[in-house]
Parts: sequence; structure tokens; C-alpha cells
Amino acid sequence: MTAGRFVTFEGGEGVGKSTQARLLAAALEARGVNVVLTREPGGTPGAETIRNLLLANEGNGWNARAEALLFAAARSDHVERLIRPALAQGHWVICDRFIDSSRAYQGGGSGLEDHDLLNLHAIGSAGLLPDRTILIEVPAEVTAARLAQRDGAAVDRIGGRSAEYHTRVAQAFAQLADAGPERFVRVDGLGERDAIHARILESLVAMLGTTP
Amino acid sequence: MTAGRFVTFEGGEGVGKSTQARLLAAALEARGVNVVLTREPGGTPGAETIRNLLLANEGNGWNARAEALLFAAARSDHVERLIRPALAQGHWVICDRFIDSSRAYQGGGSGLEDHDLLNLHAIGSAGLLPDRTILIEVPAEVTAARLAQRDGAAVDRIGGRSAEYHTRVAQAFAQLADAGPERFVRVDGLGERDAIHARILESLVAMLGTTP
Repeated sequence: MTAGRFVTFEGGEGVGKSTQARLLAAALEARGVNVVLTREPGGTPGAETIRNLLLANEGNGWNARAEALLFAAARSDHVERLIRPALAQGHWVICDRFIDSSRAYQGGGSGLEDHDLLNLHAIGSAGLLPDRTILIEVPAEVTAARLAQRDGAAVDRIGGRSAEYHTRVAQAFAQLADAGPERFVRVDGLGERDAIHARILESLVAMLGTTP
Repeated sequence: MTAGRFVTFEGGEGVGKSTQARLLAAALEARGVNVVLTREPGGTPGAETIRNLLLANEGNGWNARAEALLFAAARSDHVERLIRPALAQGHWVICDRFIDSSRAYQGGGSGLEDHDLLNLHAIGSAGLLPDRTILIEVPAEVTAARLAQRDGAAVDRIGGRSAEYHTRVAQAFAQLADAGPERFVRVDGLGERDAIHARILESLVAMLGTTP
């Protein structure tokens, strides 16, 4: 039985995380690996109900601290009900966004302290960290252009924040990767989809135990 | 202008908190005090949406840690949008349940560490504590009999837990009161409603600055 592995995709809006997560899941499954593909916020019925609260643009929105607590609550449900059981069964779990998104958005973007965000994660999910985190990076001006092309209704409350906000988020992601080179793989998100996928798969070869 | 004061009511299910909170609010208003009467979980539109998630009996319910995070998120919204602004305007805020309910239910009842619960409150609401907390105490067997008389549909997911759970909660409340005599007023919840009200009002005389 293959040991379970936990791989997360991180980065700003519109950098191709979801696409690359799907491509990686398919490539691993083609190699006979049991894969659970999931996303945050959400991933379980309970966490999806919190996701709906978080992304809705109703009323006055949430303050940054309430938002961080809601993300941590959704993650607690997701980790306990889906991620840990799947890892325990030897599956690979591929997750589109995880704790580093909280650190980059509520920390870098909204100014909460990183140790507070890690504290929420410790209390809610016993501090579970991925084995490997793929950070897909695209220049801020490219992201802005891609987001502008999305249907207006598809731009949610967080995606719709200011360019300065998203620049702070990108910088926060870069700092997290710099501080954790043993866990993070930084991938240039410009260029052809399949070439990016090949680079990501290659970065996981050692963990996979076979050549791709 | 009267200085704003923050008074909370705490205790198990069915001890008369809501009734006594209403009586206190009316008595203060009759004395010309501006009162904001509110409750937890809830109290603001955002917090009420979280209350609905918390008290619904759907699916598998929440794990104790997710539940604590959701309560803290609701409280963060409630404190920022209602409680702090009202106190800043010099109003008295009377709240049916607050942080001590989290400590007694998720701590004493469900076994989370008190320092973790206080940490969530520090991160979400800058650790705001009431000026005075009225703990209404009723023997566990009386509470059980009162809850059994309630309409089945009115017994929510937390109210419907085991007698042992509610006994642990009552013990946790008593320990909090023992540890904080400068903030807590313990009130015997047996006996006549108006007599209990009179004792509660009397306990707040010094803070009110007038005789009741």
C-alpha cells in the first residue's frame, strides 16, 4: 500500500490552481495511486455551508478576524471528516488551497498576525501541514487582467478586493515559500498548461517513488 | 452620560436566563438607562447566520473544535458590530450568554482546553470581558425536568445532549465563578421569578450608582 501523501496548491486568484490540481490528480490516478481531490473553503458538507457564508456578498461582509475563524472552522471539519481519514487509508489528498491561503489572505492581505492564524489552525486541526505545497506564481498585472475577463457574477467577495490587496497576498505567499523551502515548490504559472503540469509532476517524483 | 456597562447572564439550559435578562433590561430602562438587550450565539445578522449553522441538527453535526471556532466567529461579529459600539455610546449591554458559555460548554462539557477557548476569544474579540456576569444556578435534576417539559422541536442540538454533559457544564460554570468572584454574581435560580430579579438588580446597585 502506498503511504498517504498530502499535497496542496496555493497562489492568487486565476493562476491555474484548480486546473493543475485536476491534471495532477488524473496523472496520479493513471499511475494507480488512490487520489482524493478536494478544495477549500469547503470539501465536506459542513465546510461547504461555511464556504457559502464566507463567499456571499451579503450585508456588510465579515471582519478579518471573524473571517479567519470561519475559515479555521471549515478547515477543522474538512480535516477531520475527509483529509485525515483519506490519509489514514493511504490515499493521496490533493487540496486546492489550505492553511497557507489563510496565512496569505488574512495575514498578508488583511493584516492578522501569522502566529494567530497558526494558533487557530493548531486549535482547529491540530496544526496539520501538507507534505508538499505547490505555489503557482503569476505577475500581479497578469492576474488582474485574467480576473477582469471573468464573468462579473463569478468574482466573489474576496476575489473582488483591490489590486493592492492581491499584491500583498502574492508577497505573503512568496515569503511563506522562502521560509519553508523543504515544503514549498514554486512554479511559474505563465506558459503552456501541460508544460506547467509536467514541472509539477516532476517535482513530486521523489515522493511518488517512481519516475513520471 | 452614564458610562456603558456590560452585563452577561450565564447558566445551563432552562434556568431562566432569558427571562431574567428581559426583567433586568426593563428595570434599567425604567431608571432611564439606555439598554441594549442581546443574546449569543447571534445578536447581529451575521452572527445569527452562524447561530443557524450551530444549532441545526443536520448531517453529523460539528466536531467540538469546529463548534468552538464557529462560536468565536459569531462572537467576533457580535462584539465588533453591536456590543463595542453600544458600550462606546454609553449604553448598558445585557447579553444572554457570552464567552463563559463557550468555556463551560466546549471546555467543561466537550473537553477543550480553557486556554484555547480564551485564545480564540483573544484573536476574535480582543478578549472583551463583561463588567459583571450573573450566573443562575439550578440543581441538575431540576434542569433536566424543565427541559423534558419543553416542546421536542425546541430542544436543539446542544440542549439535547446527555445529562452527564449538562452536569459537567454546570460544574464548569461553578468553577469559573469561584475563580472570578470580582466579576461573577452567583444567583440561586429556584424560587419566585420576581424575587430572583430583585436579587440580581440589588447585585448591580453599586455599578448603577443609585439604589434600585
